[in-house]
Amino acid sequence: MKKAVVFLAEGFEEIEAVVPIDILRRGGVEVTVAGVGGDVVAGSHGIVIETDCIADEINPSDYDGVVLPGGIPGANNLADSGAVDKVLEAMRKEGRLIAAICASPAVVLSSKGYLDGKSVTGYPGVRFESFGSISYLEEDVVSDGNFITSKGPGTAFPFALKILEYLQGKDTADRIAEAALYSDK
Amino acid sequence: MKKAVVFLAEGFEEIEAVVPIDILRRGGVEVTVAGVGGDVVAGSHGIVIETDCIADEINPSDYDGVVLPGGIPGANNLADSGAVDKVLEAMRKEGRLIAAICASPAVVLSSKGYLDGKSVTGYPGVRFESFGSISYLEEDVVSDGNFITSKGPGTAFPFALKILEYLQGKDTADRIAEAALYSDK
Repeated sequence: MKKAVVFLAEGFEEIEAVVPIDILRRGGVEVTVAGVGGDVVAGSHGIVIETDCIADEINPSDYDGVVLPGGIPGANNLADSGAVDKVLEAMRKEGRLIAAICASPAVVLSSKGYLDGKSVTGYPGVRFESFGSISYLEEDVVSDGNFITSKGPGTAFPFALKILEYLQGKDTADRIAEAALYSDK
Repeated sequence: MKKAVVFLAEGFEEIEAVVPIDILRRGGVEVTVAGVGGDVVAGSHGIVIETDCIADEINPSDYDGVVLPGGIPGANNLADSGAVDKVLEAMRKEGRLIAAICASPAVVLSSKGYLDGKSVTGYPGVRFESFGSISYLEEDVVSDGNFITSKGPGTAFPFALKILEYLQGKDTADRIAEAALYSDK
């Protein structure tokens, strides 16, 4: 069974966290929700989630991918977390999935040089740092190898479905989209 | 300030709960998340939310509207709740907003006769009970007077925006949709 970890830090964007967790679990991915700085975490709109464990307990080798919701200051808190860093470093090294949405592609990933040479997207206007080159695309979701990035709450559904497709295949993603009554028109 | 209460009962559908809470708060609505049977509630995909209060503490006259997420057994648990009943009865009597999505229009509202004579939608195949007549429409979101109904997780965004429009006006709903990068294509 494929496994993914979703990190929640204080001030995470709730839609960007809950849509991937829900859709991946619907599609048979074993999702661990890990709290940064504690096991109960409040989002940027006051929704409080009890996580499955704290971030420090995550062993990167147990997972096929990591998902980073956005939100401010959630993305800043992810960027400052050593536990998140450890998982990202392992995923990059082993070419496993790194998915990020909204502020997180820029704030968490680009600030550490993860996106150099990649095509990406993210919330418009959030500044990417680049030590090489980054291609920013005006698309809802961008896949580049083992990186999947997306723009914001309104694109959380196609973001989640693209992650599911990466982990479980297109048939599963299509089946879950249909059952959830999602259509991109 | 407009106020809405969102009821969460064990087995609620997480996307259908979190998208309206988040979007309404973005749009300046004061949202109370009320737990049925306790103040910590697990959704149908294992996401656990700490609510703001328990359902029994809700005084209906404090609110301009009520939102019912779907999910099974969440919708059944809403239908069985006396506290939810009390709020629905008051909202109906005073013509205030009643919004429901997925299984809840049929399981919670139609079973009590609330939808007789109304145009509605809901998750396809969930049986409506009618003591008069109900017009089921194949649309993502249906508004009929003070009732707003919607189909499922994949339509949670337009559902939330329609509720926001009802409470705060179309300009606010359009502004929040744009900031959240939601477009119905």
